[in-house]
Amino acid sequence: MITSLFNIQIPIVQGGMIWASGWQLASAVSNAGGLGLLGSGSMYPHILQEQIDKCKAATNKPFGVNIPLLYADVESHIKTIIDNQIPIVFTSAGNPKTYTKLFQSHGIKVVHVVSSSVFAKKAEDAGCDAVVAEGFEAGGHNGREETTTMVLIPLVKAAVKIPVIAAGGIATGKQMLAATILGASGVQIGSRFLATPEASSHQAFKDLVIDAKEGDTQLVMKKTVPVRLLKNKFYNDIATAESKGATPEELNAILGRGRAKKGMFEGDLIEGELEVGQVAASIHSIKPAASIVKEIWDEYHQIMQQIKSQ
Amino acid sequence: MITSLFNIQIPIVQGGMIWASGWQLASAVSNAGGLGLLGSGSMYPHILQEQIDKCKAATNKPFGVNIPLLYADVESHIKTIIDNQIPIVFTSAGNPKTYTKLFQSHGIKVVHVVSSSVFAKKAEDAGCDAVVAEGFEAGGHNGREETTTMVLIPLVKAAVKIPVIAAGGIATGKQMLAATILGASGVQIGSRFLATPEASSHQAFKDLVIDAKEGDTQLVMKKTVPVRLLKNKFYNDIATAESKGATPEELNAILGRGRAKKGMFEGDLIEGELEVGQVAASIHSIKPAASIVKEIWDEYHQIMQQIKSQ
Repeated sequence: MITSLFNIQIPIVQGGMIWASGWQLASAVSNAGGLGLLGSGSMYPHILQEQIDKCKAATNKPFGVNIPLLYADVESHIKTIIDNQIPIVFTSAGNPKTYTKLFQSHGIKVVHVVSSSVFAKKAEDAGCDAVVAEGFEAGGHNGREETTTMVLIPLVKAAVKIPVIAAGGIATGKQMLAATILGASGVQIGSRFLATPEASSHQAFKDLVIDAKEGDTQLVMKKTVPVRLLKNKFYNDIATAESKGATPEELNAILGRGRAKKGMFEGDLIEGELEVGQVAASIHSIKPAASIVKEIWDEYHQIMQQIKSQ
Repeated sequence: MITSLFNIQIPIVQGGMIWASGWQLASAVSNAGGLGLLGSGSMYPHILQEQIDKCKAATNKPFGVNIPLLYADVESHIKTIIDNQIPIVFTSAGNPKTYTKLFQSHGIKVVHVVSSSVFAKKAEDAGCDAVVAEGFEAGGHNGREETTTMVLIPLVKAAVKIPVIAAGGIATGKQMLAATILGASGVQIGSRFLATPEASSHQAFKDLVIDAKEGDTQLVMKKTVPVRLLKNKFYNDIATAESKGATPEELNAILGRGRAKKGMFEGDLIEGELEVGQVAASIHSIKPAASIVKEIWDEYHQIMQQIKSQ
C-alpha cells in the first residue's frame, strides 16, 4: 500500500483537479487520513503560494501538489513547491525525466500520471516513486489509447515494480477493492471529491455533477488533447464540429481561452468546459470530504470481511 | 451466482462471438464446467442446426445460443432454438420484449445483453432471467454511452434484481473477482476465448489477437452501429473517413458487406473487419478453452484465499 510511501493512514489520494482542489479540499482529505492534493494547474504562481500557506495552517498531515508539466509557468510552481518543502508531487502530461530528480534531490516523492504501461515504464525509468494509472472513464484530460481501468491496471502492474495507484471510475469502497485486486496499491479519486462543500468549484457545477446520468460525459478533442466533458452546449459545439471533420485549428478556435474556469469555477453551465468522470452517474449527493473518505474506507473493509466470512 | 440458473459448475460464460463461437468452442467451455454459447449471428439457418447437432454430440452439459435480435432471419433461428430444446438463449440488440416470453414458454432461460442500467431495467421488465452488462472495453458491437465495466456493473446492479453478468475487459481470475466485487453474479468472456484452438476464427486473426498491444483497438462507426475493432487498413479507412466528417451513408459504403467474415473467418487482416476487446493487450498465448476456464477459476479462488489469509 502507498500509506508508508506518503506517510498517511488511508491509501486514498484526492485527485488534484483544476478549479476544484484548493486548500479546503486538500486539507480536509489529509485530515481524514488520505492524501490531499492541491491542483496547481489552474493557479497563478502567487495563488499556489497562498493555497500552500492556507493548507499548512489547516492540517499538520502530509499533502501534495499536482502539477501539469506543460503548465506555462512551470518553473515558478516548481520553485514554490521546493521552497515550501512540499513532501509529495504528482506530475502529469510532459516528460517525467525533466524534473523528477530535481524534486527528489529535495526529498520530494514524485508520482507521475500515465494512461498506458509504456508511459508507466518511462516514469519508472525516470526514477518516479509511483505512478497513477488513469483509465478512459476518468474525467478531464486522458490518454489516446482509451484503455479502461479494468484493463489498464493489470497491464501497468505487470510493467513496473513501483506502486500503482488506480484512477478512473472509482468512487466507492467496492470500486476501490476491485482496483486493489487488479493490482493497485491505492486509488486516486477525483469526481467523488467534486461533490463536496470543500471543493472550490461553483455550486451550479457541483449540482450538475450529482444529476449526471450514464452517457452524460464523453471524451472529445481527440485530435488535440483528449478530454472527458459533461455534455452541455460547449460540448455540443465541439462534438458537432468533430462530426463534420473539424481540424485541430478549428477545434482550438471553438475552445478559445478560459473555458474551464468559466464552466467549473464561474458556473457557466452553457458555455463553460465541465470536466468530470463517468462515475458521476453514481454520485447523487454532496457531502463533506472526510465523510467520503470514511465511507469508502469502511465499505472497502466491509467487503473484505464479507469475503473472509464466506 | 449464475451456476444454479444455468445448471453449470463455474460462473463463466463464453461469449457467442460471430465467426468464432461454433460447436467446438461452446462444447469445450461447457465440458469444462462453464457455459458455452454458439454465436448464431454469423450462421445461416441450416448452419445453426448443424452446429447444434454437433454441439449436442460433443457435450451432455448445458450450452446456449447467442442471437442478435436484428438478425435478418431471426424467426428461423428462434424456431431452431425452440425445436432443439436449447435451455438458454442470450439475446442482443433489438427489443427484449419481443421474444422473451415466447422463449420462456418453452422453458428456455433468456439473458439480454445491455450497455446501460436503463436497458437493463427494460430487460428485467420484459421478464429476462438475467442481463449481461457489457462495458466500453468489450470487443465488437457496443453501446453509445461508452460506460466502462468499472462504472457500469455497480449501476446495473443497483438498477435490477435479476443476476448481472459482467462483460468487457475480463480475461483473468483477478478481473473476474473484481467484477464480482462490483456486483456481478458471473462473467461473460469473449476475447480470451478467441485465442483458443477451438475458436473457428482464422489462425491469422488469432495470431494478431495475441500480438495486440494497448491502444490497438478502437470504437468506431459511432454514427451508425458502434463497434470495437483491431486497427488495420479497413479500420484506418473508416477512422479517416470519420475524422473528415463522413456521413452514415458514406461509412456504410466503405463497410460494404461481408467484412467481418472476410477478416475473422477468412483471415484477410488488411481489408477485413477484426472484432476484439481491449483486453487483447493482455492475451499472449493460444491455449485450449478448458485450460482457460480452469486458470481463471483457479486464480479467482487463489485471490479469494489470499484475502482470507490476510
